[in-house]
Amino acid sequence: MSLITVGTVAFDKISTPFGASDKIVGGATTYISLAASYFTKDVNLVSVVGGDFPKEFLRTMEEKGINLEGLQIKEDEKSFFWEGKYHFDMNSRDTLETQLNVLETFEPKLPASYQNCEFLMLGNLAPQVQLEVIEQLEKRPKLVVLDTMNFWMDIALEDLKKVLKKVDVLTINDEEARQLSGEYSLVKGARKILEMGPKFLVIKKGENGALLIDDEQMFYAPALPMEDVMDPTGAGDTFAGGFIGYLAKTRDISFENMKRAVILGSAMASFTVEKFGTERLMDLTEDEIDHRIQLFVDLVDFDILLVE
Amino acid sequence: MSLITVGTVAFDKISTPFGASDKIVGGATTYISLAASYFTKDVNLVSVVGGDFPKEFLRTMEEKGINLEGLQIKEDEKSFFWEGKYHFDMNSRDTLETQLNVLETFEPKLPASYQNCEFLMLGNLAPQVQLEVIEQLEKRPKLVVLDTMNFWMDIALEDLKKVLKKVDVLTINDEEARQLSGEYSLVKGARKILEMGPKFLVIKKGENGALLIDDEQMFYAPALPMEDVMDPTGAGDTFAGGFIGYLAKTRDISFENMKRAVILGSAMASFTVEKFGTERLMDLTEDEIDHRIQLFVDLVDFDILLVE
Repeated sequence: MSLITVGTVAFDKISTPFGASDKIVGGATTYISLAASYFTKDVNLVSVVGGDFPKEFLRTMEEKGINLEGLQIKEDEKSFFWEGKYHFDMNSRDTLETQLNVLETFEPKLPASYQNCEFLMLGNLAPQVQLEVIEQLEKRPKLVVLDTMNFWMDIALEDLKKVLKKVDVLTINDEEARQLSGEYSLVKGARKILEMGPKFLVIKKGENGALLIDDEQMFYAPALPMEDVMDPTGAGDTFAGGFIGYLAKTRDISFENMKRAVILGSAMASFTVEKFGTERLMDLTEDEIDHRIQLFVDLVDFDILLVE
Repeated sequence: MSLITVGTVAFDKISTPFGASDKIVGGATTYISLAASYFTKDVNLVSVVGGDFPKEFLRTMEEKGINLEGLQIKEDEKSFFWEGKYHFDMNSRDTLETQLNVLETFEPKLPASYQNCEFLMLGNLAPQVQLEVIEQLEKRPKLVVLDTMNFWMDIALEDLKKVLKKVDVLTINDEEARQLSGEYSLVKGARKILEMGPKFLVIKKGENGALLIDDEQMFYAPALPMEDVMDPTGAGDTFAGGFIGYLAKTRDISFENMKRAVILGSAMASFTVEKFGTERLMDLTEDEIDHRIQLFVDLVDFDILLVE
C-alpha cells in the first residue's frame, strides 16, 4: 500500500480577516503527506527545499512515518515562499509575493525504493514536473491522483492536457472545472473533463463541500459548517492527502470506496482550516478524527419515503 | 393541514446567459403555491394583482387546488413587474426595472375562511406587510415560515426584526445570513439569528444546497448538480413552497421531518430552474418528483466505518 506524494514543501506567510501568520511551513505535499500519514505509514515524499528549511520539521515528518528519501535539500538555496492575503469571504485571495527559489530548477528524482508504489499523489506543481514523475515510474501505479490549479490552465494548458491523459483522478475546484471545460454546468463540464483522461473527477467547493463524479455516478459530500475558519491555506491539499491516504490504506478504488475517501478527505481538511498552517495536522488523535467523521455522517443523515 | 401562502403574484422579464423570456408570470407566492400544491390541496393564497394579470393563469391555479379568495384583483391597476438579468455565474443578477404598481398600496386581507390555518408561509414582501398578515390571524398557526431578502435588511431592518420575533422558520441565503448576523461563520451567524426569534433557520445556498439549523442540530442537503440551469428565478420560492407543502401534508414539524422537507423543497426547486418562469411547475407528475427525490437520496448516500 505504498504511496508517493509529490509537491511543494515550502514557506507561507498568510493573512486573513481573522489573523496573520509569520513565515511558517506550508507547501502542497507537506499537507498531503501529513494528512495521509494518519491512514498509512508508507508515505514516500518527493520534493525540494533549501538550506533554510527547518530540520526539526523534517524530523517530525519522519517520526510520522513519512519517508524523505525523495526530498532534495539544496543547502545553498532558499525554499519556495508564498505570501497571500485572504478576503472576507475566504474563498478568494491575493498573492502578495511568490519566490520560486529552489522550485525554479526542480527536477524530481524518484529513489529506487519508490518504484512499485501502488498509489501516486501528484500535488499542485508545473504539469511538466508532474509528468516527469510519472515517466520515472517503471510500473504504472494502481491509482494516480492529480491536483492542479487555474494558474497552470492559464500558462501551461498543453502540458496539463498531456499529464491529464495519464491520471485516474483529477481534483480541482469548481471555478477551475468551469475554466478547464469551458462549460458553466458542472455536469456537462465533468463529462468533458473525463474525456481528457481521468476516470474520476473530484470538484472541491470549499465551504460547500465536494463532488465526486465518474461517467455514471455522482456523489456530493458537504463540508462541515465550521465555528471558525482561521486559514483556508492547505485545505485542498489536506483533502487530497486524506483522500489518497484512505484509498492507500484500504486498497479499494471503487466508486463506493472513493465516496468514503471524499468524506475522510473533507474531515481532515476541516481540521486544517481551524488554525494557521499545518498546526492542527501535527497531532490529531484517532478519537478526534472519528468524532469529526461522525459529524459528517450526522450532517447528511436523513431518511425519506417517496411521495405516494 | 390548511396552508396560507402570502407573497407576490406578478410579471417577470428575465434574461440569462442561456436565453431570455418575454414578460411572463412570476412572483414569490406563485412559485410557493404551485410547489406546495403538489403536497396539499388546501393552499390558500394572499396577494394582489392588477387587471392586466391573465385570468386563465388564475383558473389554472384554482384547478390545482389553490384557493384565490385572498387574492385582490385591482382591475384598474397594473401588476407588480420585475425585470432582471443574470450573470454568467447565475448566482448574481442585476435588477433592470421594478414597477411596484399594485404592490405600492397593498394591504393584505385575510378572508374569514383562512382563519384557523395550521401553516403560514410568508413569501418575500415588505416585513410590515408580512407582520400585518400575522396580526390578522386570530389563532397562531402551528408553524410560521418567513422568507425575506437583503433588500429588506437594507431598508427595513427594524420591521424585519419585529416580524422575526413571530416566526418559527426563517429562510434566507448565505450572504443574507452573513448580513443579518454580522458574522462570517454561518455557525456563529445562525446562533445569532436564532436568538432573534426563529427556532429554525434554513440557509439556501443555490447550486450548493441548503442548511437546516436549530439550536442543537445541523443538516446539509446538497443541491442536485444540473445538466442545464436555464433560469434560477423562483428557485428559492419553489424551495419554500415544497418545504412547507410537505410539512403541511405530514403535519410533523420535528427536525427529522424538516430534513425531509428540505430535500423535497430542493427537489421541487431543481425543476423550476430547468425552464423560464413557472413552466416546469405546471404539470409535474408524481413519478417525476419521486425520481428526482431518488436522485437526491443517491447523491448523498454513503456508508462509512470509523477509522479503527
